[in-house]
Amino acid sequence: MWRYKLILEYDGTPFIGWQRQNEGASVQQTVEEAIHSFCQEQVSLIAAGRTDAGVHAHAMVAHFDVDKELDPYRIIMALNAHLREVPIRVIDACEVGTDFHARFSAKSRAYEYIVLNRKSPPALLLNRAYHVHYSLNLEAMREAASLLIGQHDFSTFRALSCQAKSPIRSIASFEIKAEGEHVLFNVTAPSFLHHQIRNMVGSLIYVGRGKWSLEDFKKAFEAKDRTKGGPTAPSEGLYFKGAEY
Amino acid sequence: MWRYKLILEYDGTPFIGWQRQNEGASVQQTVEEAIHSFCQEQVSLIAAGRTDAGVHAHAMVAHFDVDKELDPYRIIMALNAHLREVPIRVIDACEVGTDFHARFSAKSRAYEYIVLNRKSPPALLLNRAYHVHYSLNLEAMREAASLLIGQHDFSTFRALSCQAKSPIRSIASFEIKAEGEHVLFNVTAPSFLHHQIRNMVGSLIYVGRGKWSLEDFKKAFEAKDRTKGGPTAPSEGLYFKGAEY
Repeated sequence: MWRYKLILEYDGTPFIGWQRQNEGASVQQTVEEAIHSFCQEQVSLIAAGRTDAGVHAHAMVAHFDVDKELDPYRIIMALNAHLREVPIRVIDACEVGTDFHARFSAKSRAYEYIVLNRKSPPALLLNRAYHVHYSLNLEAMREAASLLIGQHDFSTFRALSCQAKSPIRSIASFEIKAEGEHVLFNVTAPSFLHHQIRNMVGSLIYVGRGKWSLEDFKKAFEAKDRTKGGPTAPSEGLYFKGAEY
Repeated sequence: MWRYKLILEYDGTPFIGWQRQNEGASVQQTVEEAIHSFCQEQVSLIAAGRTDAGVHAHAMVAHFDVDKELDPYRIIMALNAHLREVPIRVIDACEVGTDFHARFSAKSRAYEYIVLNRKSPPALLLNRAYHVHYSLNLEAMREAASLLIGQHDFSTFRALSCQAKSPIRSIASFEIKAEGEHVLFNVTAPSFLHHQIRNMVGSLIYVGRGKWSLEDFKKAFEAKDRTKGGPTAPSEGLYFKGAEY
């Protein structure tokens, strides 16, 4: 058995998310079918992060097993040829040991959330950013975000549908910066709860636009109750940036 | 008569270019129709630069005249509502004097050309960048680009279909920088010949990948002959960035 690691870039807009489902095209299924077309093997593709519908990736890490040896360069070229009609590209491929697991071996995951902060909605970032027309106080958002760093109970920012056993997670870093009319939220952690980043961003935007004080944010966080949190920021602003092993 | 200036952002992918033509949707016609739906006046929209099919804009400047006074804030809101199904957004609008002309009053125009320089083709920048898989020597390209600055005969980089009276143009600045896997070409000039930027970029990439020496580039430029120039870089990498008045 040979195991290969892929690095994938994709625009999540036309997909129902990473994971195979009964209805609609998932990133997982689309790439699995490209692999089958290329080497006639039915594979199961495992990703570092199972992104939701509309969420994008700069460098998703995934692995699959096959019975015959493949040439990494040919994997890249052949899969990109099979995928040319869809916005998924294989950026890199290499053989890895069977002790490597894209999901379970990942020590850290990095995401970026992009807000387009101006009066007019996006044309060039259509489906690629969350449009916020309120002016945002970055310093206030940074202060609130600093409360999230470290190990905490993130129940307030956890989707009701989240299947993780524990609501405890550890945020390693949370940076917020402005670049022109974009506000970029960069978050890293060993792992995240379902919708955790989008829920944190939704509440931080409440702080940034002045709807919530820092104290309101703190109270919501400490309530450990999703119904006390702000709204879930939309999926189109979220990008999986990479994973470390 | 009232004259209004618009700042437009658009993704050029679905359009046949700025200018109205017999077949297909142009940016000009699409916005003119939105203006008509909003205020029931048939207007003629004049732009600072008539971008080709597939060329994008961050801040195209345009103007139009109407018989009745309009509220700039309502122009923005109403046009963006009419345009919501297409990737064109009105970023700003204001009243200007009738001595202002988006095309003839412009003192300087700025464009950016984006190259995605890596092995794999783009997913997130699909239709938004020119994919070059050769490694590029930035220093060599910068040296060649420096020859273009100032007033010259740009016949080598002028489309055969160009209708300008003179091939003489003045490049004010030409910067080339790398940002991750992107190479950004930023050019400003009072005005450009048809396809001038895409033709300059095509020849600079010949230099960057080592197909041409600096001497080859210089000879081609001095030949004042389009057939001696490199290829026309594709439209999808080009962005109108703004105009100064």
